[in-house]
Amino acid sequence: MKIGILGTGIVGNTLGAKLIELGHEVKMGSRDANNAKGKAFIEANGNHASQGTFADAAQFGDIVFNCTSGGASLDALKMAGADNLKNKVLVDVGNPLDFSHGMPPVLIPSLSNTTSLGEEIQKAFPDTKVVKTFNTMNCKLMVNPGLVPGDHDVFIGGNDAEAKEKVKKLLSEFGWKNPIDLGDITSARTTEMLLPIWVRLMGINQSPNFNFKIVK
Amino acid sequence: MKIGILGTGIVGNTLGAKLIELGHEVKMGSRDANNAKGKAFIEANGNHASQGTFADAAQFGDIVFNCTSGGASLDALKMAGADNLKNKVLVDVGNPLDFSHGMPPVLIPSLSNTTSLGEEIQKAFPDTKVVKTFNTMNCKLMVNPGLVPGDHDVFIGGNDAEAKEKVKKLLSEFGWKNPIDLGDITSARTTEMLLPIWVRLMGINQSPNFNFKIVK
Repeated sequence: MKIGILGTGIVGNTLGAKLIELGHEVKMGSRDANNAKGKAFIEANGNHASQGTFADAAQFGDIVFNCTSGGASLDALKMAGADNLKNKVLVDVGNPLDFSHGMPPVLIPSLSNTTSLGEEIQKAFPDTKVVKTFNTMNCKLMVNPGLVPGDHDVFIGGNDAEAKEKVKKLLSEFGWKNPIDLGDITSARTTEMLLPIWVRLMGINQSPNFNFKIVK
Repeated sequence: MKIGILGTGIVGNTLGAKLIELGHEVKMGSRDANNAKGKAFIEANGNHASQGTFADAAQFGDIVFNCTSGGASLDALKMAGADNLKNKVLVDVGNPLDFSHGMPPVLIPSLSNTTSLGEEIQKAFPDTKVVKTFNTMNCKLMVNPGLVPGDHDVFIGGNDAEAKEKVKKLLSEFGWKNPIDLGDITSARTTEMLLPIWVRLMGINQSPNFNFKIVK
């Protein structure tokens, strides 16, 4: 499958490399085409890797991942272009973290509690099928659930059932067998609100290798 | 031990009944002494149960539980009185849920994200040792961790190490053996932010009998 990834940071890189390993073609998109991170991604991942602008990556992908930082995501997606994202599945793994108060971060007030990054993206791009997932864990764990032993959970939410099925299939390729479907995109606010305790637990555990499990 | 419970709703009732079963003396406090719920608590729980105003219960307890609804907690605690709470451990199990937007609830904006109910209580009562715990689960599970099979977690946070040790001892009487200590009272914001996903999961599971586990 052709996959566009918006954001050439560690999250985009990690997801992109794994998707290529799984046999997909990946175009990394960033603000400036031909930047150092995009070039390094191609060098590291070979023929199935390419890079370009946000718009190039969005146009390329049958499925597009938002891996930009939460506070910059809406702008990055505007640069990607509504037409390039039209009718496509957009997997939003971002979190609206606000580091302006120092550490630990809080959530950006205008993107939390009564709304969320996922919801605001869906509102801004009504013809795109936004699916929120993977935002409650470190990116190394996204692509390798075995990094944390035993059973633990990934959440998924979005308005379009078919889009969620496509993303669940990708999740299963990564090794995630039973994602918890939280319902529509308003559920994004509930998973983005897990970030503050996640950040705190990372400090306590001195490692990002942990995850949430819902025990019942 | 003498324990004061502020709030005669289902949470206060459930904790109070279990504390009496464990051999403690419990005074239930409410806005109006001698209300029907307070009297029913005494009838149901015998000689070690008593009731009175918020102030009566706060004065009575060596440890005091805040089991009032989050939006009303600061007012209830003012009625309980700073002098009656001075130097005492106040176990805050409340959550700042805001039902004014309908269901599902959001968090009260002035009591979330950059602060929390637990923090605001600690600020308002600086001579009281506020310990946040138990707010991430249904009250039946608080007093009976076996209600959900296997391992799962309770969180605890507060500024005073000795106060947390006292509360951990109570938690162990309830059957909670390894609470996750999240640090100071600012951690209350991180556990209160678990409520939105908790509410959503309760709807999906059609049961409150589930809990979070941190797997690492």
